[in-house]
Amino acid sequence: MTGALPFQVQLALPEWIPDAVSGAGVVATDADKVALAIELSRRNVEARTGGPFGAVVFGPDHRVVAAAVNRVMPATCSLAHAEAMAYMLAQQRLGRARLNRDDEDRPLGPFVLATSSQPCCQCYGATVWAGIDRLLIGARSEDVEALTEFDEGPLPQDWVGELERRGITVVRDLLRDQARAVLRAYGEAGGDRY
Amino acid sequence: MTGALPFQVQLALPEWIPDAVSGAGVVATDADKVALAIELSRRNVEARTGGPFGAVVFGPDHRVVAAAVNRVMPATCSLAHAEAMAYMLAQQRLGRARLNRDDEDRPLGPFVLATSSQPCCQCYGATVWAGIDRLLIGARSEDVEALTEFDEGPLPQDWVGELERRGITVVRDLLRDQARAVLRAYGEAGGDRY
Repeated sequence: MTGALPFQVQLALPEWIPDAVSGAGVVATDADKVALAIELSRRNVEARTGGPFGAVVFGPDHRVVAAAVNRVMPATCSLAHAEAMAYMLAQQRLGRARLNRDDEDRPLGPFVLATSSQPCCQCYGATVWAGIDRLLIGARSEDVEALTEFDEGPLPQDWVGELERRGITVVRDLLRDQARAVLRAYGEAGGDRY
Repeated sequence: MTGALPFQVQLALPEWIPDAVSGAGVVATDADKVALAIELSRRNVEARTGGPFGAVVFGPDHRVVAAAVNRVMPATCSLAHAEAMAYMLAQQRLGRARLNRDDEDRPLGPFVLATSSQPCCQCYGATVWAGIDRLLIGARSEDVEALTEFDEGPLPQDWVGELERRGITVVRDLLRDQARAVLRAYGEAGGDRY
């Protein structure tokens, strides 16, 4: 180990992201929101710019606030999952650490996270603090674990209920088969586990 | 909401961190490792540069790999907890996304995270992936929740066992009273809840 004590972290998206998202416009339905997250997961595998996961934060106007993909290996950062990247980028853009609350703790939402696969244990926890009102999920954890070598980690037994009690609505199995298809293609190609 | 789609996240430590850590040298014992994390939590409150939490990654030589504090409000980022910052900084310094494994998945540890308070639900999950062998904890979650207005979030019922089964030894209550004193001072001063 060499060098000075590290002082700053930089995490960047792949260069193709703006092009993939800029034409999205108003994305009204839950399924269409998850479709965009799945499309990003597919392109991330195709471009070899990270793992097979995509996530998008939408604002109350159903437009993209931030879109992200898994960047663990390119960024050398175990936290750089798609959901975590999307939260961080959205918070920096909107200038607040809790997306759906203003400085006086008044509600600003609804804010939505659409993700191609169920969040792992880390992104599950990050979801509790990020300030979203709805969590839209494509593939299930068991799909991730069956079709790839990724582990999803330990969750509270009633993980959906814990989110719902904190005001976050959870919708699962949106375009699950499409999300699974990306995971399967990645797994069959023997993609790097992160 | 204005501006282009965000593309990059930057997270930085307060300027006083290198000065606070540079003289640490070899920190041999568990208690001394947690003492440094608590000292960082104390200074972060004193300098008003974030919440009352500090965390330090140590390498196999018992030297500091990365030291961090809570930066949620200054960085406008709900993920910028002390433990998450420490993991990201350590991984970037060592050039690998899993601290205790090389490219061939051979063990490199032990790597240790010392934290002033028990990790919240997000940093708990991040701990599963970061690549540490030992987790050293000062204050308990119930201390955090009793002495400040911070919520620690939902964890798996057997959260210690889940880590131990993944090869991470957990040691609790190290200098718990010292860690509690910082939390109490912060809570009594009515510090910003992130």
